[in-house]
Amino acid sequence: MKTVNSAAELRAARESMASPFGLVPTMGFLHEGHLSLVRRARQECSSVGVSIFVNPAQFGPTEDLDTYPTNLDQDLELLSGEGADLVWTPTTTEMYGRRYQTWVEVEDLTRYLEGEIREGHFRGVTTVVAKLFNSFQPDRAYFGQKDAQQAAVILRMTHDLNFPIEIIVCPTVREADGLALSSRNASLAAQERQAATVLYRALTAATERFNSGEREAKRLKAEMEAVLADEPLARTEYASVADPETLEESHGSIEQALLSMAVVIGKTRLIDNITVGD
Amino acid sequence: MKTVNSAAELRAARESMASPFGLVPTMGFLHEGHLSLVRRARQECSSVGVSIFVNPAQFGPTEDLDTYPTNLDQDLELLSGEGADLVWTPTTTEMYGRRYQTWVEVEDLTRYLEGEIREGHFRGVTTVVAKLFNSFQPDRAYFGQKDAQQAAVILRMTHDLNFPIEIIVCPTVREADGLALSSRNASLAAQERQAATVLYRALTAATERFNSGEREAKRLKAEMEAVLADEPLARTEYASVADPETLEESHGSIEQALLSMAVVIGKTRLIDNITVGD
Repeated sequence: MKTVNSAAELRAARESMASPFGLVPTMGFLHEGHLSLVRRARQECSSVGVSIFVNPAQFGPTEDLDTYPTNLDQDLELLSGEGADLVWTPTTTEMYGRRYQTWVEVEDLTRYLEGEIREGHFRGVTTVVAKLFNSFQPDRAYFGQKDAQQAAVILRMTHDLNFPIEIIVCPTVREADGLALSSRNASLAAQERQAATVLYRALTAATERFNSGEREAKRLKAEMEAVLADEPLARTEYASVADPETLEESHGSIEQALLSMAVVIGKTRLIDNITVGD
Repeated sequence: MKTVNSAAELRAARESMASPFGLVPTMGFLHEGHLSLVRRARQECSSVGVSIFVNPAQFGPTEDLDTYPTNLDQDLELLSGEGADLVWTPTTTEMYGRRYQTWVEVEDLTRYLEGEIREGHFRGVTTVVAKLFNSFQPDRAYFGQKDAQQAAVILRMTHDLNFPIEIIVCPTVREADGLALSSRNASLAAQERQAATVLYRALTAATERFNSGEREAKRLKAEMEAVLADEPLARTEYASVADPETLEESHGSIEQALLSMAVVIGKTRLIDNITVGD
């Protein structure tokens, strides 16, 4: 496994690697969710690249950039164990150098859900992913369904800007009790960790209602909100029943939907989602 | 020479072409300026691609999109004569399909000169050029110095977004009397065509002042404005002495500068520029 810092080193290393090349973009502090993406890439591609970069451009001024967890040594050990070929760990100066001023923006899909609350977040995501795409020149790129809106936005950007890259969205990896894996879970205290199962419980409750025949968007949403409200340590930012393609909030009777939510527990903000009806 | 319409055909055709691949993006109605780019690409590259697309996204609502000249048959004949290998003539629906919503924006360089007057113009340019870069996957791309700010903006975008592409900016091609070649020259009436030499005369006058030792930005600007004011058919939109790197307007004494201007003659808007002191 080759680890590089500069874009020039990356380009040189990439040139000698066989295609198809699979890319797994990450912000590090890797968990089984990330590793499931690396394994999938390993199965499907001749070469596998991973980026580790905590991207300042996707954090708002009041968000947790400064406390975002890192553990590069452990990350590299895990990636080596999974058979990754190439790891890029750029600095912020490498990514956003002097007079940096170019941004990639997806407009409609980013108006809702996370985009409505985290202003500028997706502009940071799409810009850095465009940079990673151009730097690695992958044939396939792997993202987790856990960040459902991010996956939708990146699919859209890839299509709109004609990137010759196949985007592969992989299933959310969960703990035994249903909590979706996230680097941010590490900052939950013991009692908060217990409370954090409420996201999956709320999603499961609404899914069961859907599977029992409920099709009214407002009732599915109310079901999630009721479960979330029952957990004293959880503060709901939003619970949403949305169109899986446009991400617009659903009204009336639905045939399929993205059920999603953002919940703050202590100082930790968690998101989760499930798609029903597809 | 292979001519293709869809992005899928383009990708298939591109795959069989040898590298280095050179791209010349155009809006068609080709003249010697465009052809000089194709010749340069032909000299330096194993394969040469050209795009012909009048990009609606870079025209403002009151601009000349509907009257922009076209002549596809003649363009293809000229390109065939120059030995181009691949020509893409996408439709607007191909480029900006259903739910199109992704934009690439260069911020600082586009605040000045053309960007100040033509709101949204460069967002349209950078977006379509990013799409062309991803579609053609060129090793080199060729642009004319005639559109100096466009060249600076594309160089910036290419660097910022890590496109693995060398941008080559080629000299402005001029008529014998100095008028810079432009597809828009075709819409000048005979008297207007005569008046249109005023841009180059103004640039030449200021360059001569610079070469004689004048270094005060405001005097060089006044020199251009005076020449332009002398031409009754010309209405000056701006005459500028700017920093060639940042494109900010220069003040005080300068060592090098981009001299540029936009002038309306009849219904035709013309631009031209010269760099001094490099």
